[in-house]
Amino acid sequence: MHARFHAPDAERDGDIVSLPDEEAQHLTRVLRLKIGASIRVFNGRGAEFDAVVEHVGKNAVQVRVGHLCNAVPESRVAVTLAQGVLKADKMDDVIRDAVMIGVTAIQPVVTARSEVTLQSLARGHRQERWQRIAVSSAKQCGRAVVPPVLESRLFDSVVASLQDLALPQPALMCVEPSAAAEVLSLTDLDTTAPRQATVLVGPEGGWTPEELEKGAAVSRQVTLGARTLRADAMPLIAITALLMHWREL
Amino acid sequence: MHARFHAPDAERDGDIVSLPDEEAQHLTRVLRLKIGASIRVFNGRGAEFDAVVEHVGKNAVQVRVGHLCNAVPESRVAVTLAQGVLKADKMDDVIRDAVMIGVTAIQPVVTARSEVTLQSLARGHRQERWQRIAVSSAKQCGRAVVPPVLESRLFDSVVASLQDLALPQPALMCVEPSAAAEVLSLTDLDTTAPRQATVLVGPEGGWTPEELEKGAAVSRQVTLGARTLRADAMPLIAITALLMHWREL
Repeated sequence: MHARFHAPDAERDGDIVSLPDEEAQHLTRVLRLKIGASIRVFNGRGAEFDAVVEHVGKNAVQVRVGHLCNAVPESRVAVTLAQGVLKADKMDDVIRDAVMIGVTAIQPVVTARSEVTLQSLARGHRQERWQRIAVSSAKQCGRAVVPPVLESRLFDSVVASLQDLALPQPALMCVEPSAAAEVLSLTDLDTTAPRQATVLVGPEGGWTPEELEKGAAVSRQVTLGARTLRADAMPLIAITALLMHWREL
Repeated sequence: MHARFHAPDAERDGDIVSLPDEEAQHLTRVLRLKIGASIRVFNGRGAEFDAVVEHVGKNAVQVRVGHLCNAVPESRVAVTLAQGVLKADKMDDVIRDAVMIGVTAIQPVVTARSEVTLQSLARGHRQERWQRIAVSSAKQCGRAVVPPVLESRLFDSVVASLQDLALPQPALMCVEPSAAAEVLSLTDLDTTAPRQATVLVGPEGGWTPEELEKGAAVSRQVTLGARTLRADAMPLIAITALLMHWREL
């Protein structure tokens, strides 16, 4: 199996495209590939190609795009993970795991109990960092899709968007069993796979009562069994369980 | 909610029992509880009690066991995770996660591609370490059961045991989609929950062809979708998916 690289400009057989800086460095400095080496490239939007290294310069690598390959199939349910921002390295792990298990997009959410602000995330260039982690995870797990990590938003703004959807997509809010009166088990949900779904997962400290109330108006609140799950394991568990329930795993 | 401690000797209301050393230290040095403090204790075999700190000595804590409480319910399927031994900290994470998601026992397995031997595991007192991690995870996730971490065994010995079972329990071997001819998706499995099941997960380097062949004789080989999953995430994903399939999550 040839090494895989993210080449966002690859569109069709015959294209000559440059690799992004990080990918070029991986190719030249880590794997030490030379002109003529056979590789694979994926464009992050679902297309994967055979390719050949065409030019290796000081700061740039160009590749010649070849035949379209069979990419790893994507889930038929487009799942957006709306994740309460966790502490630094835990959030990194969640991005990596969510891409591996197959989400379509990641929406970081600043909640009352997130220990960050929109400003501090912007100052720290966190979105760019998370997007790089998404690329890296897609390379490792074999996906030809790189899910976008969206700009962080406040909880209220995410709730408002869920309210505004003309055809509301199913939104599921993961809560502690004791958190709300009308909590469903995941197994109570319809097994018919929707076309898209949003899964809301809270930060380490969980949801506030106010967030639970606002969330209840735009989502179904579900629990994942009776045990207390670590915050950074919850997205992987929730999405695995949902994909299994919808027969997409 | 009162702090929870593992008190393996707690059997019934009225017992006065000593806490194990680590638990005593947690109570006195970390939480700084005093005589008369209300706590909870669980005996690791499914019983959880209210309790009161009765005596705090230099190196020992005794507690008076009170009323039996409702423990977090256990899954009705007794799942044994037979896990190819991973590199040090990854194996620790797997033990922690497996206890959190609800396994009944953990069987570490030395496979051809495990980078350890039975001797090196014994010298490093790894079983004791893993058992302590299991206790710690049970405390955090709220289980009153501490799953035993069994003595490490060679792959062939685990296969022989699966063969010997008079009433064979379902054994599932997690494999890469390309690994074997007759690979099932988890969704192809019967949804009727068995009483017990063994889930075999390989180490970082996967199974050898010989192990795949031996495993096929005593287990059903299943895949978890088309993506390449990190070895240390695979047990959590596999067990979550199975519990969901059997409606136990």
